[in-house]
Amino acid sequence: MAEANVVLLDFWPSSYGMRVKIALAEKGISYECKQEDLEAKSSLILEMNPVHKMIPVLIHNGKSICESLNIVQYIDEAWNLKPSLLPSDLYKRSQARFWGDYTDKNVYNAVKKVWTGKGKKQEEFKKQFIRCLKTMEDELGDKPYFGGEDFGYVDVALVPFTSWFYTVETCGKLSIEEECPKLLAWPRGAWKKSVAKSLPHPHQIYAFAMQYKQRHGLE
Amino acid sequence: MAEANVVLLDFWPSSYGMRVKIALAEKGISYECKQEDLEAKSSLILEMNPVHKMIPVLIHNGKSICESLNIVQYIDEAWNLKPSLLPSDLYKRSQARFWGDYTDKNVYNAVKKVWTGKGKKQEEFKKQFIRCLKTMEDELGDKPYFGGEDFGYVDVALVPFTSWFYTVETCGKLSIEEECPKLLAWPRGAWKKSVAKSLPHPHQIYAFAMQYKQRHGLE
Repeated sequence: MAEANVVLLDFWPSSYGMRVKIALAEKGISYECKQEDLEAKSSLILEMNPVHKMIPVLIHNGKSICESLNIVQYIDEAWNLKPSLLPSDLYKRSQARFWGDYTDKNVYNAVKKVWTGKGKKQEEFKKQFIRCLKTMEDELGDKPYFGGEDFGYVDVALVPFTSWFYTVETCGKLSIEEECPKLLAWPRGAWKKSVAKSLPHPHQIYAFAMQYKQRHGLE
Repeated sequence: MAEANVVLLDFWPSSYGMRVKIALAEKGISYECKQEDLEAKSSLILEMNPVHKMIPVLIHNGKSICESLNIVQYIDEAWNLKPSLLPSDLYKRSQARFWGDYTDKNVYNAVKKVWTGKGKKQEEFKKQFIRCLKTMEDELGDKPYFGGEDFGYVDVALVPFTSWFYTVETCGKLSIEEECPKLLAWPRGAWKKSVAKSLPHPHQIYAFAMQYKQRHGLE
């Protein structure tokens, strides 16, 4: 399949955008990455994602695919000669989709609530965040990756959020290593080249988060 | 594939459970359906869906699959000799997953907010509900089904909510036919045997909703 015409509409601190970058890197696909200004959206993003008007959007040969895990599945299917992200076993596939969905529905909100929260509410959000991570840690168990021996779909879904952990720990005054040591050890295993080159430095994320809180009166 | 060992854990008014029943009916799979009492959950559901503890759960040869659209995809892949629910074209598959996801994230909440809402808030919820349906109606366009000529994944995702439309119209004092005539005509096309036998009568849903509102002090 021709790889020349692949464009990613992205916003660099977005964990959802990072998922797509990791999947593209896993498959060795070269692409053009366009950064969007979410406060002054381009006509391209409004045209390519008219329903949600959000990044990430993958444009492949002029056609757009939206929603990060949907894009990851599309990449996995479209470049199917490279190692698969989703397992070939049907039951394991369903479990991978389940945990991808769990990550989508729980981790983003849990992370954001802690770093933007205050006082008693933040204490409650911290408990929710740790419960959510412990659920993922239980699922990981003693495996090197969520799917078993190989880096795959659930790792792609979750690992971008680790770039936000420094911000969560600093704003929430908590230690993820104390609470979930196994889960915190996992990204070191997952820290393949595809991940390392797709995630911003945690300090960059922290600087972005501090600016965001200032702009939105959340300090 | 042996079809003897298929069990569905269900709660009859759930649109998510109906999705699974339609998919099973589309594939001609015989199964045992166990109704759950959501206020006194069985040990089976706690064992089979320990993370969410919710229906629907499909148990296939003793192994559980959770989350309705994940189950529909599993059924489509596992019984792959019967007509497919997801298109074989990769781009169309990504679009089907996108609209399934849109339905998941928007329609259930929009429906519930209208029938449980009151006063000014309900008026706002009605507007959200209609906006959501109009977005789906635009996507349907003049096609007989969401995917084109054949009943498929997005139809399975959305059609169960039509069994709630009578309740929404009665509680919200609105006419879906006036607002979205094309969308309201679509389920008549989608009203295949697989759908007809999987959806309760709208009056049964209404009676359930009235009892629910009474129990939760929402009248």
